[in-house]
Amino acid sequence: MSSFKPEAIDLSHHLSHAARARHISPLKGLAKYLGTPGLLSLAGGLPSPAYFPYSDISANVLIPNSFPVSPTQESSSFAWLWKLFGADKEKTVSLTIPKYPVRPEDLNLAAALQYGMAGGIPQLQKIVKEFSDKVFQPAYENYVTMLHAGNTDAWNKSVITLCNPGEGVLVSKWTYPSAMAAMQPYGIKPIPVDIDAQGMRSDALRTVLTEWDETAHGMPRPRVIYAVPIGENPTGTTTTAARKKEIYQICVEFVEDDPYFVLQEGQYVPKAQRKQQSESAPTGLDEASHFIASLEPSYLKFDYQGRVIRLDTFSKTIAPGCRLGWYTCNPMFAERLERAAETSTQAPCGFGQSLVTAALLEWKYEGYIRWLKGLRLQYTLRRDFFVDCLGEEFHLTVAPGTVGLWEGCDVYSAFVKPTRSLTGYFNEKAPLGNALFSFSPPTSGMFVWLKLHFDQHPAFSTMSSKDLEMKLWIELAEAGLLVGPGAIFWPTGDYASETTGHFRISFSNSTKEELKKATEIFGAVLRDFMADA
Amino acid sequence: MSSFKPEAIDLSHHLSHAARARHISPLKGLAKYLGTPGLLSLAGGLPSPAYFPYSDISANVLIPNSFPVSPTQESSSFAWLWKLFGADKEKTVSLTIPKYPVRPEDLNLAAALQYGMAGGIPQLQKIVKEFSDKVFQPAYENYVTMLHAGNTDAWNKSVITLCNPGEGVLVSKWTYPSAMAAMQPYGIKPIPVDIDAQGMRSDALRTVLTEWDETAHGMPRPRVIYAVPIGENPTGTTTTAARKKEIYQICVEFVEDDPYFVLQEGQYVPKAQRKQQSESAPTGLDEASHFIASLEPSYLKFDYQGRVIRLDTFSKTIAPGCRLGWYTCNPMFAERLERAAETSTQAPCGFGQSLVTAALLEWKYEGYIRWLKGLRLQYTLRRDFFVDCLGEEFHLTVAPGTVGLWEGCDVYSAFVKPTRSLTGYFNEKAPLGNALFSFSPPTSGMFVWLKLHFDQHPAFSTMSSKDLEMKLWIELAEAGLLVGPGAIFWPTGDYASETTGHFRISFSNSTKEELKKATEIFGAVLRDFMADA
Repeated sequence: MSSFKPEAIDLSHHLSHAARARHISPLKGLAKYLGTPGLLSLAGGLPSPAYFPYSDISANVLIPNSFPVSPTQESSSFAWLWKLFGADKEKTVSLTIPKYPVRPEDLNLAAALQYGMAGGIPQLQKIVKEFSDKVFQPAYENYVTMLHAGNTDAWNKSVITLCNPGEGVLVSKWTYPSAMAAMQPYGIKPIPVDIDAQGMRSDALRTVLTEWDETAHGMPRPRVIYAVPIGENPTGTTTTAARKKEIYQICVEFVEDDPYFVLQEGQYVPKAQRKQQSESAPTGLDEASHFIASLEPSYLKFDYQGRVIRLDTFSKTIAPGCRLGWYTCNPMFAERLERAAETSTQAPCGFGQSLVTAALLEWKYEGYIRWLKGLRLQYTLRRDFFVDCLGEEFHLTVAPGTVGLWEGCDVYSAFVKPTRSLTGYFNEKAPLGNALFSFSPPTSGMFVWLKLHFDQHPAFSTMSSKDLEMKLWIELAEAGLLVGPGAIFWPTGDYASETTGHFRISFSNSTKEELKKATEIFGAVLRDFMADA
Repeated sequence: MSSFKPEAIDLSHHLSHAARARHISPLKGLAKYLGTPGLLSLAGGLPSPAYFPYSDISANVLIPNSFPVSPTQESSSFAWLWKLFGADKEKTVSLTIPKYPVRPEDLNLAAALQYGMAGGIPQLQKIVKEFSDKVFQPAYENYVTMLHAGNTDAWNKSVITLCNPGEGVLVSKWTYPSAMAAMQPYGIKPIPVDIDAQGMRSDALRTVLTEWDETAHGMPRPRVIYAVPIGENPTGTTTTAARKKEIYQICVEFVEDDPYFVLQEGQYVPKAQRKQQSESAPTGLDEASHFIASLEPSYLKFDYQGRVIRLDTFSKTIAPGCRLGWYTCNPMFAERLERAAETSTQAPCGFGQSLVTAALLEWKYEGYIRWLKGLRLQYTLRRDFFVDCLGEEFHLTVAPGTVGLWEGCDVYSAFVKPTRSLTGYFNEKAPLGNALFSFSPPTSGMFVWLKLHFDQHPAFSTMSSKDLEMKLWIELAEAGLLVGPGAIFWPTGDYASETTGHFRISFSNSTKEELKKATEIFGAVLRDFMADA
């Protein structure tokens, strides 16, 4: 493959020993012959498509504008929200993928269900390339897109392609536990970096790298960052363009795992102040470009040296069960990642590729963008509704954060709500005076991240935050509510050093009634718990 | 999980360091609560199924008896073979999988397309368990079946679960190159063991293990065997029950990669001697049991200590693009393999799982067995037809093999066919007297494995077999025929020690006309080549 344009940087020294050791695929030796017209191949171990028992597969697919893009009178009352559960008002279009299409170049099961190139079927390769072109606008020319079997697996392959056993990966102080668990068996350790509301802090990153002491740390200075720049799981932080530029300038290499990219929900506005918003009409921009311009850009946009491996997934935008996504990265990394796929996952499932491709071909690029806009509003409304519920269950005060994760953000503190009795306001159990927990409504993603103020708990002097967090988590579970315990998102073993507890609460998959009920359970259990009742 | 029955053996010392280091899934901590009726979960990061854009998916699926099970007058003339390419005579049944079925326990997209347990959807888990029960009949009770994303990935996960870097895996002298390539980046080396027509020789295995010298080999004695016992790729050997028992008695641990299990084609009978065969009616056995009894059993049948990880795939029996298969192994290995899947592939693709499950539910167990019987005959007829073609292109003689791979087998030697001219028989180029190549028709799988007698080549004194093999391979490719070069199936670096060349030729995916044309090209190029023309 050709060298980088416009910048030519040799990044091959960042490949792991394992990645370098991978065989060149024997297929590559055949490649010069494979295109020959009339060539007979008895080389592969391919079953005949005649023996694939599917004559065709079909799907009824929702139309791209199934969800509104701006809150209407009806939508802001949430009357329509989750209405699709009833399924009787869905508008769908029927699509069929035959085993043998009339035009052989059309989407066909004979090809999609055959052993295939690990990079995926050509029609879908073209679609994701166009998406990366238009939406991420990488800063160098000869980047490559290549399909993979979901971001979890793509991260696993990225780790073994970039890191050697005993090395470290820079991660946000709070981050996605499954990504850490993938590194662990290879002896690759997370190196936490301090965060604020934009995710990883560039000054903290610079300090970690500058002050790195190979002897003291027992490992070389890390060369790889794992970043979830939009809707970081669990904190929900959004890394802005300015921060991304700073990080990139400091950077050596990194992997951008960005499943929540289109779920950029914007600032939470309290219910009473929320206005009937209508999308401002694009001026001089088509609808798709207007939508893209409204999103924080990818690291790719600043990646003039080809250092980023971006992981995209259809899990959040189509369905997790697709197990389908794509890399955008430099051709050298792509080639090594493709070799890694050839000896493990091979191509993503042909049924899934076919059905996703058929929908995207039907929707076209503009339709897919329209679908994503609808999705973004759904998650925004869910975020708003859940925070509204917290506002009904607790007395919320708002003040700008001054330090740490929420510096400069609207931080909501939750107090026991005064209860009106015959003789005025009173509360039975918990003290009114101190906040029970605090949070900053996320600007992207699926989660609200709570700090639990256990310093207000009567047993705080004798129990660690970690133990109090688990105690409360169990009490909630036994009262019928599961939330994500903070401890599992702490990448290293020293969680006891935290003085607050944490919960990650998902608003992505419950009905309105369930979210309401959940906040009531949460309120009742938490008030009792903090009163040590 | 409970200990083994009836034998209780602790095999935990066979886990790799990496496998031991894997996290227990955080999900396991939640498991005791997840079954609670009415429990609200805001713990996971699940999108709402309302946002999955598929209302339903459908397929037209062939009926199980689409292919005959015994050669008929029509079939033995090959008139029907590959007829399904025309697709107009297919008998299919239409299946639909809704997002929200009327009965929630039915197959449904809302569940199949959600993040799921790595082991797969329950309906398919049940089907593969029944298949392993009835077809493989493992020798201990509490074995586990668990879905995976294809044998290639399952082998990758088995390697990192069982082996540490620097260790070796015992393999057949000729074996599947992709399996070797998967080990290489982890620093795990293949240790070849001599083979005969039954695959790995038990006496050779015993010798390797008995005489193992840790210092001389620079690694501990291998603990793992990789076996393709049916239709070994590329040699097509079939390991009999008796041999399996011998190997198992010697064995410590092993992985059985058995994609060709049902493609057991039996002995090749030359065309002139081939009789119109009709399946003998089962006596006291139902059709499915009769079929199973006709197959060499799995290693599982002798695995009374739970040492085998058996890998099954739908690639050869449904379609490679399913990327779907299953493990059958002991519960401890299964648990570690499930953890490995959670941080990489997760569950197999939900679309693929749904469509495969729908077909298998429709066909039922007996229907699937009927489908497999039809497939087996298809591959048998293809094998016979291709060997017949070789018999038309070359003068074949047959004699029992006396040594090595084909000891005790019918070995066919191919000579230049006498060409009748006006003055009698003559040949222009190659010597009549010596065999150009030899082979033993495979008893299973998709490939004919040829030994090329390069000692007859004029340049043999100055060129290695390896170089002659590549030279011939290129000449064939340039004449329009691709075959599998033998060198890629040699697991170690010392191929030059072989005195013959080798080709693997696939009969699995070409039309009758293509196979005929391929043998003609092969004949023409080989005769010229051996005459050094």
